[in-house]
Amino acid sequence: MELPDIPGKIDTDALCELLDGRWASVRAAARERMAATGLPDVDALDTESYRSQVFAMLRTLAAAGYPKLGFPESVGGQGDIGGAITAFEMLGFGDLSLMVKAGVQWGLFGGAVEALGTERHHERYLRAIMELELPGCFAMTEYGHGSDVQHLRTTATYDPAAREFVIDTPDDSARKEYIGNAARDGRMAVVFAQLITGGTTYGVHALLVPIRDELGVAMPGVRIGDCGRKAGLNGVDNGRLWFDHVRVPREALLNRYGDVTEDGGYLSPIEGDSRRFFTMLGTLIRGRVSVAGAAGSATKSALTIALRYAERRRQFERPGSTDEVVVLDYLAHQRKLLPALAKTYALHFAQEELVATLHELQSGPREEGEGYERRQRELESRAAGLKAVATWHATHTIQTCREACGGAGYLTENLLPALKADTDVFTTFEGDNTVLLQLVAKGLLTGYREQVLQLGSLGLARFVADKFVGTVIERTAAKAVIERLVDRMSGDTKDDDLLDRAWQVRLFEDRESHVLDTLATRLRRATAEEADAFEVFNDAQDHVLRAGRVHVDRIVLEAFLAAIDRCGDQDLASVLDRVCDLYVLSTIEEDAAWFLGHGRLTASRAKAVTGAVNATCRQLRPLTSALVDGFGIPEDVVTASILMR
Amino acid sequence: MELPDIPGKIDTDALCELLDGRWASVRAAARERMAATGLPDVDALDTESYRSQVFAMLRTLAAAGYPKLGFPESVGGQGDIGGAITAFEMLGFGDLSLMVKAGVQWGLFGGAVEALGTERHHERYLRAIMELELPGCFAMTEYGHGSDVQHLRTTATYDPAAREFVIDTPDDSARKEYIGNAARDGRMAVVFAQLITGGTTYGVHALLVPIRDELGVAMPGVRIGDCGRKAGLNGVDNGRLWFDHVRVPREALLNRYGDVTEDGGYLSPIEGDSRRFFTMLGTLIRGRVSVAGAAGSATKSALTIALRYAERRRQFERPGSTDEVVVLDYLAHQRKLLPALAKTYALHFAQEELVATLHELQSGPREEGEGYERRQRELESRAAGLKAVATWHATHTIQTCREACGGAGYLTENLLPALKADTDVFTTFEGDNTVLLQLVAKGLLTGYREQVLQLGSLGLARFVADKFVGTVIERTAAKAVIERLVDRMSGDTKDDDLLDRAWQVRLFEDRESHVLDTLATRLRRATAEEADAFEVFNDAQDHVLRAGRVHVDRIVLEAFLAAIDRCGDQDLASVLDRVCDLYVLSTIEEDAAWFLGHGRLTASRAKAVTGAVNATCRQLRPLTSALVDGFGIPEDVVTASILMR
Repeated sequence: MELPDIPGKIDTDALCELLDGRWASVRAAARERMAATGLPDVDALDTESYRSQVFAMLRTLAAAGYPKLGFPESVGGQGDIGGAITAFEMLGFGDLSLMVKAGVQWGLFGGAVEALGTERHHERYLRAIMELELPGCFAMTEYGHGSDVQHLRTTATYDPAAREFVIDTPDDSARKEYIGNAARDGRMAVVFAQLITGGTTYGVHALLVPIRDELGVAMPGVRIGDCGRKAGLNGVDNGRLWFDHVRVPREALLNRYGDVTEDGGYLSPIEGDSRRFFTMLGTLIRGRVSVAGAAGSATKSALTIALRYAERRRQFERPGSTDEVVVLDYLAHQRKLLPALAKTYALHFAQEELVATLHELQSGPREEGEGYERRQRELESRAAGLKAVATWHATHTIQTCREACGGAGYLTENLLPALKADTDVFTTFEGDNTVLLQLVAKGLLTGYREQVLQLGSLGLARFVADKFVGTVIERTAAKAVIERLVDRMSGDTKDDDLLDRAWQVRLFEDRESHVLDTLATRLRRATAEEADAFEVFNDAQDHVLRAGRVHVDRIVLEAFLAAIDRCGDQDLASVLDRVCDLYVLSTIEEDAAWFLGHGRLTASRAKAVTGAVNATCRQLRPLTSALVDGFGIPEDVVTASILMR
Repeated sequence: MELPDIPGKIDTDALCELLDGRWASVRAAARERMAATGLPDVDALDTESYRSQVFAMLRTLAAAGYPKLGFPESVGGQGDIGGAITAFEMLGFGDLSLMVKAGVQWGLFGGAVEALGTERHHERYLRAIMELELPGCFAMTEYGHGSDVQHLRTTATYDPAAREFVIDTPDDSARKEYIGNAARDGRMAVVFAQLITGGTTYGVHALLVPIRDELGVAMPGVRIGDCGRKAGLNGVDNGRLWFDHVRVPREALLNRYGDVTEDGGYLSPIEGDSRRFFTMLGTLIRGRVSVAGAAGSATKSALTIALRYAERRRQFERPGSTDEVVVLDYLAHQRKLLPALAKTYALHFAQEELVATLHELQSGPREEGEGYERRQRELESRAAGLKAVATWHATHTIQTCREACGGAGYLTENLLPALKADTDVFTTFEGDNTVLLQLVAKGLLTGYREQVLQLGSLGLARFVADKFVGTVIERTAAKAVIERLVDRMSGDTKDDDLLDRAWQVRLFEDRESHVLDTLATRLRRATAEEADAFEVFNDAQDHVLRAGRVHVDRIVLEAFLAAIDRCGDQDLASVLDRVCDLYVLSTIEEDAAWFLGHGRLTASRAKAVTGAVNATCRQLRPLTSALVDGFGIPEDVVTASILMR
């Protein structure tokens, strides 16, 4: 396949600027900080030394003012939510234990105090949290309830006589598990527990519970265990917590969404335990968004190492010559790494857009009302979906990078082992990916139902005739850009042009609509037949997961297109257009069975897609270095031995 | 989809017996040995302590007579090649550093001395190697040449005056790299080097070179480095070797396939440096076969942990009930683990057959002639293919098992982190998988060319009309079984029966034929047009890899069918039939794009395949425990904490 020409060179600074985006200054500051410190040599350390080194590094971060970005101005912070998430993303280029430890202290622990607490908690604790005088934990997960946190079983029972809550772990499966900062450093924990007052349970609430005194000794009634060694992230002290009727004052309740009066009455602005709990959870969305960003950073580091190595490594003589072939010139090697690079670009832009949306929604005064709730729900759904897709992409890509470096990729000195081991848990923490994709699908079904209800039967017929495009599917990024592209479609492009952007967008949208529509029909029919709800949903689980996945594919594509649209450098835009083609075409190729099976691609066109992926890889091959340099990773943190010889 | 009934229970002992197969007694002995020792707690150990513990364990193995199986009776061994590989496979249930260390000492080092050396080497060294009095290395890979070992650059230059070889590392990229046993324990190395005598180079040969004296001090001229920490296998002391004009006597040459006379003449029974080198490599096939087996054991351990956990773990209430759902009852969870279980079964039987074939070919007096060479070539091709498929399956499955256990899967105490980290290098050592699959394809193309040449033009026409089935494709295991199945095809089965075994076999065969045929045509056409040979082959690289992969799928299926055929227990056979269906259907589903794109499946039939995978998972769900128990892994080595509560 012949592709239109693209420039043979791009301006790396312009690329870096585009990728740096809105929070470029935060990224620049992070680069400076990292260039000064580099990576610690942690592999030689035993667990205690590693933990202690990470804690020392955390102090350095605190002293440098890193946590200020994320906290409100009222307590000395800067209140820049998007900036804080971006700074966290940049930590993903360094030691990942430090990143997770920072996430636990300031994102999860501090974030929960801020989001779920009220002024009395903010005034009393936030400054100390920010300055690391009060190291703390986010104690939500229990051994028996990780994904299903609504049903966790720790109790917080109000005792009106003492005006205290009694925190209790009813049995071993209700112990708090995998809690970061718990095994060594934490002095306080935000503990999630079923709130009981006057004999009634009001669902899960969060309370501040001291777990260690200033000397580091466990508080009375608190038992602390150590999760021990893990596959990675061994600089983080994950632990277990048991509470044996531990008493905390009434004011320990983080009472923004639910409070208990002195005499034990229960007050909440939100009706319904379940709705209240999910509102609370929704405010904690930053953690999920942050993980997606960090996964992106680790992926970029791995690709940088593997692609730079692939450009200098030679193996096997070229037939009829004594020159050895550079391994990145092999199609098989390009296919391993370049589609992954393209998807990393796509996810970068999707992540940036997600961060900006979150920033807009959470900055300034909190709004109320239906519009806000809908936007919040959409944001949660996109955060869940991107987190799942970005972390699986990280796991898969880092694995591929390791293999692409052969034995060298297995040596610690070449950094890939730590990248792999440290990021592995991303796919299951802050929400198990499989569960998250189902959340996305459920969100889509909710939106779908609302639309269908509004339409009435006449509208429904039209809706069906339209194949739902543009109806159920709400375009996210730069709607105008996408609409312009799709409108251009009819007439002036050749039908066989796989690079026709309008065709590509339509194809992604059409797939999403079809998957969602058939899913809704399937579930509705089953409901009508009064079948066992669990069995119906369970039988459709692969369909449900697919709905979540294809939705994410589409919003990621839209974000990529919006980024290209705002790129001022024409040469750069042409190259990114081709990178986007590679993202689209390799995504189509991966799901070719669906497109073929649903009459969206003919056999010959499917073959052409594979040819186009190969051709695109070949065309982008000479630009690989520049595309990698654009990530702007501080050189000191990708100092793999294999790149130094 | 409704499936025919299968028994609700199976006899685990009968299953274990079937899986244990021909070398059941070797497996029984290994189980006893392991039950006595359990797994060492290695995660708490620093590198030196871990290495020293593994070396001590290696001594225990030697004392227990473990290595005897693989060595000839003439030196006190038992000469049971298949038994030795099976014993190694069983080590895969234990600490994998010990397994690899044993593989280096007795498989690679001892194996090379045996296969490439002659009586003088056997008499002098094999007993000491077997008894671990002489720890040694297999020094083939160089930093600059890992896959392309034919072009490695260490030299062994004969000096007729001194009757010695001079071993030299010309530059840093020719240093020996990742060499097991080198950093700490090895005293001698089989060094692969370009042999030069009388100014002429005769290609790569192997020589015995002492690297340390009895006190452990490096020999003069030998520099030894340490590869340091790795992602896993940290009980193995991988190192680097540089030789600075190191002199060894003429007799140090392992001279079975090439020798140098005292005055520097070169003698070899094999013409051509390349052919000679690949003959030598071919004798070392055991390493590759052994890795495939070990990968299988690690996969079984991971599945045992994840599936047992999935049967006791509950999460989320069943709608309309307060019971929580067992996670293995979720379709998504079944889909993660059960097709992997089915493929693990399939690969087990394929591995056993490969071992038996190798055993037959290498036991007894070495044959000569064309028939032997063809069988040896086929064996090498199958070993390469199975190694690639089995190790990728291991990496993928162990990763999935980790994720299926959530946070618990990330904790060292639950064993999955070590399984994952230790096996990760399997995909690139003993031959990089991508390179190996190309070897398979090249082997198939060679066979193809030979057949086409023999046919003449009339034969060729018939050959084309037959779509090559049964012509190019030589059925491997139990030909009679397969032929019976395929012959039954016409007439008496319904066309829409996805469980029709004859249809399944035909589909796999047809795919292989088609892929190979179109590949041959593509490469031939390009050759006829005198295109750049490298570009042609490179452009077709994804096609080449596919040819290797689909070939392996087919031989694995045949081995599974042969195993079911020899299963005497009717109930068990019915269940295994369904496990085999799951292997076949999930393999088809994975490659559905190809089947759809090549008119082998209609859209509705492809959808039915997905439905059948789901139905098969559901049907096999209650038998999961039994299927896992059948692996017969000693309970002491799968003592994950999550299985004990």
